[in-house]
Amino acid sequence: MELLEERIRRDGRVMDGDILKVDCFLNHQIDVGFLDELAAEFHRRFGSLGVNKILTIEASGIAIGSAVARAFGAPLLFAKKTQSLNIGGEVYSSRVASYTTKRDYDVYVSRRFLGEGDRVLIIDDFIANGCALDALTDLCRQAGAVAVGAGIVIEKAYQGGANRSRAAGLRVESLACITSMDSETGSLEFAPDAAS
Amino acid sequence: MELLEERIRRDGRVMDGDILKVDCFLNHQIDVGFLDELAAEFHRRFGSLGVNKILTIEASGIAIGSAVARAFGAPLLFAKKTQSLNIGGEVYSSRVASYTTKRDYDVYVSRRFLGEGDRVLIIDDFIANGCALDALTDLCRQAGAVAVGAGIVIEKAYQGGANRSRAAGLRVESLACITSMDSETGSLEFAPDAAS
Repeated sequence: MELLEERIRRDGRVMDGDILKVDCFLNHQIDVGFLDELAAEFHRRFGSLGVNKILTIEASGIAIGSAVARAFGAPLLFAKKTQSLNIGGEVYSSRVASYTTKRDYDVYVSRRFLGEGDRVLIIDDFIANGCALDALTDLCRQAGAVAVGAGIVIEKAYQGGANRSRAAGLRVESLACITSMDSETGSLEFAPDAAS
Repeated sequence: MELLEERIRRDGRVMDGDILKVDCFLNHQIDVGFLDELAAEFHRRFGSLGVNKILTIEASGIAIGSAVARAFGAPLLFAKKTQSLNIGGEVYSSRVASYTTKRDYDVYVSRRFLGEGDRVLIIDDFIANGCALDALTDLCRQAGAVAVGAGIVIEKAYQGGANRSRAAGLRVESLACITSMDSETGSLEFAPDAAS
């Protein structure tokens, strides 16, 4: 998606440790109008699939998930990283190996909000090694819900997570697909945008 | 706000430990259309104050904060609970004593996104003892930004945090103000809605 690639080139910063900082518009400070444009693109791509629920993961998925839920007229459900007092005991849980924090953690959703008959679109801000996506699809599987696809804002293609999920049969669409990054020069390359 | 009180009476559940679960529409599963109505009410109350930034705290503030940011045409900034690799070193931080998890934690915002000249509306889903609000106002103070007010979806008035902030001079408006809850009967009482 050209609009997104331009924004990443303009405002993104390639940091040491294979980090792309897009915290000025996507996952710390949020440009909600821009996220609405991304959400419209996800709706264009997934809008015909009977989606009735958007599933994401806290914290950085919630803003884009919320915009996508609005575009679909569907509720957003976000997987929680802490099984707080507020979530109660009746949950599905799955394990995530985090790339950015280097720590494994569990995520939870209440059984009341995910179940058979749900047609779920998974949304997240990034995909790298794909562990968050694996956990979210696992939560759908446990609940008997159908994951009809995954919409990711930024794919780091060279880490392979998205292609691994595609090979397993999940429709994964990313709006910007990065094939290489160089923190010394600050440069990054995008894959050709097949969908535009 | 009558619409919200009705929704809480219909869908909220009063649990042991002074917990009000509204996770079916506010902070786990999210009814984005409903949050847009809450956001419009916040805009009605705070729209004339020159707000140029919405500040909230992850994770449960992000969805309502995002809706309010859209209503104001302003960016949303959410304070992070982990100083991840993605946030970098240049941050303001403040300490929060959490009511729901019983653990203290620090929250962070990047110095790049909060500063002098910012007129900030703080948004959160709940206020109880007010420690999250204290931390968010402290972040504004550190940054030299003006906190013009705080918009809270649900105030637990009997825990006093909102009134403590009001006494300190902050304009705090809640859309539903709970004066008592009883987990044995499931009943809860609201304060009269002064603004409607």
